[in-house]
Amino acid sequence: MPKTPESTIIKDGTIITQDANRRIFRGDVLIIGNKIEAVGESISEPAEHKIDAKGDFVLPGLINIHTHAPMSILRGYGDDMTLETWLNNRIWPAEAKFNSEIIRAGTDLALLEMIASGTTAFNDMYFFEDEIAEQTEKAGLRGFLAEAIIDLGSAEKAKEKLAKCESFVKKWKGNELIEPVISPHGAYTCTPETLVKSAELSEKYRLLLHTHCSETRSEVYDVQKRFGARPVEHLEKCGIIGPKTTLAHCGWITKAEVKTISKAGATLAHCPVSNMKLATGGYAPLPEMFDAGGNVGLGTDGAASNNTLDMFETMKFCALLFKHHRWDPTILPAQKVLDLATIGGAKAMRRPDLGSIEPGKTADIIIVDGKRPNLVPAYHPVSNLVYAAKGADVKTTICNGKILMENREFKTLNFEKVLEKARKTAEIFAKIS
Amino acid sequence: MPKTPESTIIKDGTIITQDANRRIFRGDVLIIGNKIEAVGESISEPAEHKIDAKGDFVLPGLINIHTHAPMSILRGYGDDMTLETWLNNRIWPAEAKFNSEIIRAGTDLALLEMIASGTTAFNDMYFFEDEIAEQTEKAGLRGFLAEAIIDLGSAEKAKEKLAKCESFVKKWKGNELIEPVISPHGAYTCTPETLVKSAELSEKYRLLLHTHCSETRSEVYDVQKRFGARPVEHLEKCGIIGPKTTLAHCGWITKAEVKTISKAGATLAHCPVSNMKLATGGYAPLPEMFDAGGNVGLGTDGAASNNTLDMFETMKFCALLFKHHRWDPTILPAQKVLDLATIGGAKAMRRPDLGSIEPGKTADIIIVDGKRPNLVPAYHPVSNLVYAAKGADVKTTICNGKILMENREFKTLNFEKVLEKARKTAEIFAKIS
Repeated sequence: MPKTPESTIIKDGTIITQDANRRIFRGDVLIIGNKIEAVGESISEPAEHKIDAKGDFVLPGLINIHTHAPMSILRGYGDDMTLETWLNNRIWPAEAKFNSEIIRAGTDLALLEMIASGTTAFNDMYFFEDEIAEQTEKAGLRGFLAEAIIDLGSAEKAKEKLAKCESFVKKWKGNELIEPVISPHGAYTCTPETLVKSAELSEKYRLLLHTHCSETRSEVYDVQKRFGARPVEHLEKCGIIGPKTTLAHCGWITKAEVKTISKAGATLAHCPVSNMKLATGGYAPLPEMFDAGGNVGLGTDGAASNNTLDMFETMKFCALLFKHHRWDPTILPAQKVLDLATIGGAKAMRRPDLGSIEPGKTADIIIVDGKRPNLVPAYHPVSNLVYAAKGADVKTTICNGKILMENREFKTLNFEKVLEKARKTAEIFAKIS
Repeated sequence: MPKTPESTIIKDGTIITQDANRRIFRGDVLIIGNKIEAVGESISEPAEHKIDAKGDFVLPGLINIHTHAPMSILRGYGDDMTLETWLNNRIWPAEAKFNSEIIRAGTDLALLEMIASGTTAFNDMYFFEDEIAEQTEKAGLRGFLAEAIIDLGSAEKAKEKLAKCESFVKKWKGNELIEPVISPHGAYTCTPETLVKSAELSEKYRLLLHTHCSETRSEVYDVQKRFGARPVEHLEKCGIIGPKTTLAHCGWITKAEVKTISKAGATLAHCPVSNMKLATGGYAPLPEMFDAGGNVGLGTDGAASNNTLDMFETMKFCALLFKHHRWDPTILPAQKVLDLATIGGAKAMRRPDLGSIEPGKTADIIIVDGKRPNLVPAYHPVSNLVYAAKGADVKTTICNGKILMENREFKTLNFEKVLEKARKTAEIFAKIS
């Protein structure tokens, strides 16, 4: 990895601060080490490295609060199928073949795409998470990572998975870029005992919780039938729902459940693209979450069901989905959607040092190319970012003060090698079907 | 404009032919003049110019069958507003200031974005259409262009607009790239007499018809109240609905109207992004159109309500919107959606020489970069193109045998100048609000 400059100055960009006043102005950002030292109209202090951002947009790195990085290796492997066929004939047989090497290839591909498209932090749940953590640290991205706990009713499996999770936690706790997370897979895939033990692990190590919740109707009915409570209530009883919790999807929750989530201070991770593509029929009730004062962030879900990790695309889908459903173009304005992808995500990860560009905050910053046909004119920069920008418009990605991509050139990952390795690895799966 | 090579060979790409068998294979495409001379696994004939497409996807240029090009100058000028506020406070006051210079600036911006994002033909309806045609011809793109006819009940206005339309037709008929179209704006903005006269013009000059239809509920109620018939029936009575007609939106049509449109051989132009963003609540009943054997194409609508002209984005929104609404991931597969954007559009424009890569067809071809993090692996090229590609992944755009962009370098438009002119022009509007 190349030596990181001690200090970097971003000059003359349009800075979308995402601070409390949502200030937007033309100016400079000075980074020293991994921190934002100064933000202002004209900073004269010298810096080791200078980035000219004239005509470009400078904003906080986007935070993807629900994904499964290695699944990028299965991008497009099974589309236009019912969920059951997709899982039975494609995803599960493919995942059964997963090993360390495949995981590394898929994770690198995901990391490359996230860096390329302006995501600087992601909340991941999968297996082989040690490998994911190693690749993430090497790439220099910020990972909130969890070795998923899933037991499908087996006490033996639960024991094994809980132990694996705890050993992952012990290995990575205290790492600057990798924050371990406790992830019971879901109310329908874990026994109540496993959920309770997961909550205890979170308590013991003071770690975030991350689980799937009410993604499909059948999940809701299934949980209700088995445990006599809808998923939110059931998860709450098992101690899973609190201020450290992120609940992915919530496409089929009631207003009462919105209240429970909001009151507990938990975060809803909305994944509009994946929900629409898998045709779950559901979509999280964001306006109701806002009314209840709840926190919301955005996720792409894995690339197998999206089929990208492009958070810009997810922002546009999110905004348009609600305008369309509620017949109200004002219901989810661009600024609110950008908030979800930045400060909403930071709040979910309980990291007030992330999500905005302000002195003293951690330097997770991206620069979007203003010289693109789709980003001119720019009456309202935030409107352009949410409705017209794509991940491909990102020029430069900085995480923890380190430049991971500059002018579309990758600094920590070998672009050609990652793509070639992914292509070769994918050949294993192409033969399954 | 640089001299076009007499012949071009595209070597070693993955060719998505979109022919009757939807063949996909690795090979070459030979272009001579404005025609596709040969398509095969290995073409040894020499060509003046060679394009290496190894690892890339070669497909027919996308056809956008409903847009208003100059409105790109109003991209992001009014978002997150009710339709009424948007029109009254933003669009109409801005359009009132439009002149030739503004139209040229907006059109060039739109042309640049279309070339950059792989659109090779577009069906446009606006005013100052002479200027739009001139800029389109200069840029080398294929335009189906109409000087819109709108009377708002005034016979005098109708006379003026019909005359303007006819003079536009006379000026451009027979042009190789520009095909004039007759566009009465809609059933709610034209008197029945004007609609009848528009149909007569279409008949007289054997030209396509293009109109708005059932975009909003209020339009449907309004037309029903004034003319005693829903828009489709009313347009039919006025002679507007036939095999040469494209009906934009149709977000609020009934099954009976689906049958009328399909039986007449007219085309429905589905614009999912604009419909969702403007929160019209409606979306065209595509599965029902397919069942009825009707033709469907895709449109972006103007960039003021989209906010891009990215047909790749429109394909993804189209596919996901139906999966989501119908709770069925199989309802609109990737191949079908790509068909809408290629051969569906070609059929709408009654141009069987467009929309696929086959010997003898006109050379409107694009090349999508296969070396992008979001396009690897590529189990199914069509799945990647619809669910994972963005306009920004297009490398090379060829229209009528001419290379308009190669390796992201524009050949007919001056990238910097077009953006600078658009930025300067936009300052006029920034002051209105």
